[in-house]
Amino acid sequence: MANFISRRHFTIEWGQCDPAGLVFNSRFFEFFDWGTWTLFEAALGVKPPDLAATFGILGLPLVDAGATFIAPARFGDAVEMTSQVSEFRRSSFDVAHHIFVRGAVAVEGRETRVWAARDPADPSRMKAQTIPPEVAARFQIA
Amino acid sequence: MANFISRRHFTIEWGQCDPAGLVFNSRFFEFFDWGTWTLFEAALGVKPPDLAATFGILGLPLVDAGATFIAPARFGDAVEMTSQVSEFRRSSFDVAHHIFVRGAVAVEGRETRVWAARDPADPSRMKAQTIPPEVAARFQIA
Amino acid sequence: MANFISRRHFTIEWGQCDPAGLVFNSRFFEFFDWGTWTLFEAALGVKPPDLAATFGILGLPLVDAGATFIAPARFGDAVEMTSQVSEFRRSSFDVAHHIFVRGAVAVEGRETRVWAARDPADPSRMKAQTIPPEVAARFQIA
Amino acid sequence: MANFISRRHFTIEWGQCDPAGLVFNSRFFEFFDWGTWTLFEAALGVKPPDLAATFGILGLPLVDAGATFIAPARFGDAVEMTSQVSEFRRSSFDVAHHIFVRGAVAVEGRETRVWAARDPADPSRMKAQTIPPEVAARFQIA
Repeated sequence: MANFISRRHFTIEWGQCDPAGLVFNSRFFEFFDWGTWTLFEAALGVKPPDLAATFGILGLPLVDAGATFIAPARFGDAVEMTSQVSEFRRSSFDVAHHIFVRGAVAVEGRETRVWAARDPADPSRMKAQTIPPEVAARFQIA
Repeated sequence: MANFISRRHFTIEWGQCDPAGLVFNSRFFEFFDWGTWTLFEAALGVKPPDLAATFGILGLPLVDAGATFIAPARFGDAVEMTSQVSEFRRSSFDVAHHIFVRGAVAVEGRETRVWAARDPADPSRMKAQTIPPEVAARFQIA
Repeated sequence: MANFISRRHFTIEWGQCDPAGLVFNSRFFEFFDWGTWTLFEAALGVKPPDLAATFGILGLPLVDAGATFIAPARFGDAVEMTSQVSEFRRSSFDVAHHIFVRGAVAVEGRETRVWAARDPADPSRMKAQTIPPEVAARFQIA
Repeated sequence: MANFISRRHFTIEWGQCDPAGLVFNSRFFEFFDWGTWTLFEAALGVKPPDLAATFGILGLPLVDAGATFIAPARFGDAVEMTSQVSEFRRSSFDVAHHIFVRGAVAVEGRETRVWAARDPADPSRMKAQTIPPEVAARFQIA
């Protein structure tokens, strides 16, 4: 079995680049967030703004994020970003993102997110919930 | 009588600049938004996240914004931004922002915002409300 | 004769929205910048990062920008943005942007930009140049 | 000996928050970048835009970044961010950032950056250089 991979293609915009002419680092974390929503929509068939209501959760809050910058991405570069869940645990999961420029990996991203619902003991707070097995199953391909 | 002016001082950051080495235009509209919140806090003595609840409104939605770019602002530039309400109307008002770099106006900004509450006829929508005279009065100085 | 119109389609992302659940205003000015580059690429057949070198200019600096916010755009909304030059003058031009959500105009944007080259008298500065007639001609359709 | 720590105080702005009312994750990486420039200015006594020329480098490119999100930061929250070099190696170094909200750590950030100059063999590329010992020494306090 392998994990489902979603893909996005986009072009680096002028306003995403810094005075060195390279994509400013925080923009990649924005891209990773796009990638995770795209991945969940592709795997679960649910529009991103409907995800929370469909599954009775508040969202997929990020608890850890990271990136390794291997090669630069510049204004006008055509980018392919792949996103896949690399591991599901009881109530959290890891997403791996790869940004390809000119056929090579330019940036590797990683996110750890939680499947979070309203805390029954304190509705103003979120609480991690068990990820439904049927959700995790949708991210695997035979 | 004159209008109350609030001031903010900040330094232009690397990530706010584009490959030409100049502040990317959308950042100024972010600065103007900072300026309006700062102005309302200074004039009304209410913390921004408490503004809506204090006055029974949903917020101050922007209906028009504009900027004239006169001189560049660059990485490391020390900026002074002034913000003031230039006109109150029944349920909307204009805010004028001026960004000074090296003692001269670099950018002029203008926003038109609405004093908006929940629409009694449709709670999912906002509706412009009459600005309380005691609110407008706080923006004038003898 | 009419003016050439370029179109972009994209979806509103989570990170582009504010606590009211609406696209934060500065993001629209980012979108307008995307639109202008897209329009110039479509009309002139030159990749954005090659535009300056191809025409011997430094760029298309923005001297004025504005937006009128008519209806909200929310997370997940599918957007169509149209961009066209509304007027060419000797060395500056206006770009009109329209952002459509659910078939209606949600935001109208306007930019005034300059066709700018290095100032021969002071190479550290930019100077407006006459827009080549063959450039302006490419934005008109019979 | 201990490492020099720089501090910044700022308030979370409306436009930095997402529809959940929390700071959108990519903004923290912007904050970390601010923190590193602030730290270098404080330790070396050189204005950020003068750093490269003063030391004959091109910059401090980021090769790895990460964050652990422990507690939320919301619109209007007063933030203290501390930044310090946690380790200097021959030509790279790590920066640790801590974002405090209401007296507790809300976010831990980490960056790995390189002391990079123009590559003598290919001036279009950057190359890691040995960090001058007198630079590293300025980040230690007796």
